[in-house]
Amino acid sequence: MLKEALLHVADNPYAFAVDNHQLKVRLRAKKGDILRCDILHDDRYRSVGRENRLALTNVAWDDLYDYFEGVITSDTKRVRYVFLLTGIDGSHLWYGEKGISVNREEAGYFQFAYIAEQDIFRIPDWVHDGIVYQIFPERFYNGDKTNDPPNTLEWEDKLTDWKCYYGGDLSGILNKLPYLEELGINVIYMTPIFSSTTNHKYDTTDYYSIDPQFGDLDTVKALVKEARSKGIRIIFDAVFNHCGDTFFAFQDVLLKGEQSKFADWFFINEFPVIQHPKTNYETFANHVSTMPKLNTKHPEVQAYLLRVARYWIEEAGIDGWRLDVANEVDHDFWRAFRKVVKDANPEAVIIGEVWHDSRAWLRGDQFDGVMNYLFKEALNDFFAKQSIGVRSFNNRLTRSRMIYSDQANAAMLNLIDCHDTERFITACSNSGWGWNEERRPLDRMKLAAFFQLTYPGMPMIYYGDEVGMDGENDPYCRKPMVWDKNMQNEDMLDHYKTMISLRNELPELSRGSYETWVEDELATVYGYIRTYKGQSTGMLINNSPREQEVSISFIWMNEGDKVTELITGKEYRVSPVNTIQIEPYGYMVFKG
Amino acid sequence: MLKEALLHVADNPYAFAVDNHQLKVRLRAKKGDILRCDILHDDRYRSVGRENRLALTNVAWDDLYDYFEGVITSDTKRVRYVFLLTGIDGSHLWYGEKGISVNREEAGYFQFAYIAEQDIFRIPDWVHDGIVYQIFPERFYNGDKTNDPPNTLEWEDKLTDWKCYYGGDLSGILNKLPYLEELGINVIYMTPIFSSTTNHKYDTTDYYSIDPQFGDLDTVKALVKEARSKGIRIIFDAVFNHCGDTFFAFQDVLLKGEQSKFADWFFINEFPVIQHPKTNYETFANHVSTMPKLNTKHPEVQAYLLRVARYWIEEAGIDGWRLDVANEVDHDFWRAFRKVVKDANPEAVIIGEVWHDSRAWLRGDQFDGVMNYLFKEALNDFFAKQSIGVRSFNNRLTRSRMIYSDQANAAMLNLIDCHDTERFITACSNSGWGWNEERRPLDRMKLAAFFQLTYPGMPMIYYGDEVGMDGENDPYCRKPMVWDKNMQNEDMLDHYKTMISLRNELPELSRGSYETWVEDELATVYGYIRTYKGQSTGMLINNSPREQEVSISFIWMNEGDKVTELITGKEYRVSPVNTIQIEPYGYMVFKG
Repeated sequence: MLKEALLHVADNPYAFAVDNHQLKVRLRAKKGDILRCDILHDDRYRSVGRENRLALTNVAWDDLYDYFEGVITSDTKRVRYVFLLTGIDGSHLWYGEKGISVNREEAGYFQFAYIAEQDIFRIPDWVHDGIVYQIFPERFYNGDKTNDPPNTLEWEDKLTDWKCYYGGDLSGILNKLPYLEELGINVIYMTPIFSSTTNHKYDTTDYYSIDPQFGDLDTVKALVKEARSKGIRIIFDAVFNHCGDTFFAFQDVLLKGEQSKFADWFFINEFPVIQHPKTNYETFANHVSTMPKLNTKHPEVQAYLLRVARYWIEEAGIDGWRLDVANEVDHDFWRAFRKVVKDANPEAVIIGEVWHDSRAWLRGDQFDGVMNYLFKEALNDFFAKQSIGVRSFNNRLTRSRMIYSDQANAAMLNLIDCHDTERFITACSNSGWGWNEERRPLDRMKLAAFFQLTYPGMPMIYYGDEVGMDGENDPYCRKPMVWDKNMQNEDMLDHYKTMISLRNELPELSRGSYETWVEDELATVYGYIRTYKGQSTGMLINNSPREQEVSISFIWMNEGDKVTELITGKEYRVSPVNTIQIEPYGYMVFKG
Repeated sequence: MLKEALLHVADNPYAFAVDNHQLKVRLRAKKGDILRCDILHDDRYRSVGRENRLALTNVAWDDLYDYFEGVITSDTKRVRYVFLLTGIDGSHLWYGEKGISVNREEAGYFQFAYIAEQDIFRIPDWVHDGIVYQIFPERFYNGDKTNDPPNTLEWEDKLTDWKCYYGGDLSGILNKLPYLEELGINVIYMTPIFSSTTNHKYDTTDYYSIDPQFGDLDTVKALVKEARSKGIRIIFDAVFNHCGDTFFAFQDVLLKGEQSKFADWFFINEFPVIQHPKTNYETFANHVSTMPKLNTKHPEVQAYLLRVARYWIEEAGIDGWRLDVANEVDHDFWRAFRKVVKDANPEAVIIGEVWHDSRAWLRGDQFDGVMNYLFKEALNDFFAKQSIGVRSFNNRLTRSRMIYSDQANAAMLNLIDCHDTERFITACSNSGWGWNEERRPLDRMKLAAFFQLTYPGMPMIYYGDEVGMDGENDPYCRKPMVWDKNMQNEDMLDHYKTMISLRNELPELSRGSYETWVEDELATVYGYIRTYKGQSTGMLINNSPREQEVSISFIWMNEGDKVTELITGKEYRVSPVNTIQIEPYGYMVFKG
């Protein structure tokens, strides 16, 4: 066994409580090294020798490692444990906090000292079933022409610059709720809607007012109410890293300089404040003059923003916040934020915008999940670019899950694109195998959507993806929603509806574990099994433009049982090895 | 290079801010694998290709890994970085968040998104110079006979049971401050002094009153004041995991059962509350009826205990808290505790009692340091039991440091024994090389103390160790302090005084980096270098009963320079290799 590869820490994500008396433990080992992974565990005050056994399961692997998991049950909530690893070479090693040794005593123990109720990472239960639809309100639907900004373009006009307006608004979203209901989503995440000077509204002028181009408090309340009646939740976008330069406090600083009582609300390097040609204050990114960074350490700023967080939950009844540039705001602020949000509504969800490894925010004290860019990048590379094979795809997904607890993984916002990226179908059109017309971007987009909708975590559909909208990076990924049925891709829309229905019908797709099933690198065929309460469903996808024949075993079934492929309705009889044909860019769902 | 051994996470302890513009990064690799470890870093918003270089240093190693460190400076406080590793085999690998690859792009980047002032782990500056003396007040000195409990034993009486009293008190400590001043320590940590029914007082009756056997508020104030005038700080013991069953709230629950308004302050499994023969409520450990566990999730309990924390800082002017059974109280409570304590006195220190890997408490949001049992166990095994050699000793120390940030390592309470363990000299007497009289427990104890006083972190001297007191586990490690000069070991006392002086004289011993210098497993000779602001001192210890000759290089000196051994005053001329004789259980201090 390769000692250097072994990793366990009695802390998230390698040990985390899943309930008051249940501790999930995870161990990482060199891939293929371990035949068995067992644990001896007991109350930490009991004397040695009376420990309970637990056999761990190999739940995932990547290019370097296998991951083993198991759940320790403890009456006293105080756990000590030691791993016994049996190698494929017949060797054994004890692994505890003191070290790795053939001698148990030298290994010592890991200690999870106490499962404290208030430290348990709790996410709202509904999150497990969440299917999210992201709306960029200015571009979704113009429901109220009276609030259109000057020079509003016609909906069908070609988008030519960053700053244009199309007149989309909250009434528009309200009007289109039946469409969303029919699509089958149950959560709407809207990019910012508070007063601001831009179409994207990430430069907040007033956190307490809805931008009049979008509506007002009544419109929001009506939207939330109507959405709720359809079982749809609403998530707002909290831009707390920075405000707009039109925010009252920054305006005061511009006016009064050092004398402003809001001078410390920002990071001003020197007075007087200069905006052009180069800011002398911290901003979002570097020197974005219209987006001064907020000093979230300042008690008044904290109090102000936390009141905002509470206000919209209590006043408008929203179901959570997505946090813009969440990784550049301090952890301390987010901890306070979580307390306020969960106090205002324990069922509210908190999703951070973090494009990278987010474990520092996902231990249960800050966010529930993040916008899952690790997921997005894996899907982009596999389905759109086709620059990685089945094995790399699986490796990347494994790593993206194994750095987090189950709770965080369940609360991930699994995107394939959004308002900050090119649209997925455009990525498929511009890259991948084959030349132009052979690329079959629609098929690959459908395959990616299939995967997204059968993977753990909340799938997030960026408005218009479901009707085949394309678009390069901002601003072209923010084109007006296509409502003209002649312009919509009906096949894509049907696909989304079918897949959403499937996810809603099979609890294992939303709540189940995830297990890699088939990794046929040569055929570019990948399979995975989702299991929940003893019910398993196996998915098989072919990410190649060629029909493939693969040999698979329905490992969750018994020989002779019948298994149904749900897309076609075709039945198979389970043999030790089944030969399956799968269409080019095809997907199959096997249910026993 | 062994990919499986590589480890970096853009989070504590692998990445942590040491100042507003400085990020320390640490990388773990297979021992002996890496020739060079470089970093390319830049502001995370700048385009690729303009990155700055940083060469990392191999700062430590254990049996499996080398550890490399460097400090990234960032004007914008937003850092992205990627490692370039050059193997001893001439190979190279890029290592970023996406993976490990010969291809830079495939490696991606690590992101430390923003160094937020409020997330920086700050410890009080004085902690770097702290030398702590632990007092068990009932057994230190009887300064006031009038407050003696009934049946108080004579100071010289033999200790025969757990429950006896000797009459030690706060006046006693006050009286003996000149002794402590002469010894050279500058921090006193007292085990609990609040009203309680036992001699150890870990079962608090009243968190707001000093036990009358020890004194009162005035005595404490006088003690703090007098100590401060001598440059000595005072740390109290916070027993917040549980209270005594005589605590008013628990008494109320015993009396009124479920009707008590304090019923939720505890974890009562069912009413009526039963204490004997087996409790039906959670306690410290299991079924310790006199120590009911406090429900620190309850807002009233939180508020009560946090007021206690603030009260003693503000009222008595104490300089910090040591937290009893800190690992069984929730992180959420400790975060609130830190805010209150640091608000009341930013210079107050917080030390948790955690006997195992404590990284979950040491990211800067909870404790400054912990009672460093990993250190204690390494010293116990090496110096007392002599069950491990030089290399294992070094490995254990490395691991104990590399799981924490610099700040936590500086704030460690480095004990070799305490009121909960056998005394170190007793461990030396009962084990180690040689038979009985050959064991030289005093020499080995002195060697351990030498090491403790030349190692990073706050050395903690358990009362009486400095005069050679012995004692098996509780209660025998809690014998009355030996004040009779004829009974004190003068040699040991001189040793402590000399070593404390040395630590105070050479800032590198208290504030410097730590580097392993000599690992002579065969000779049982170990060397290490401490460096601060360009000043280095090298220590050499011989943990064997035989004079040893070792070949060493004064790697921080130039050939031909003079180096002085500070214990003997002997001078050496630096050669490429110097042959040094070191006495049985000897220690040497080389200063250039």
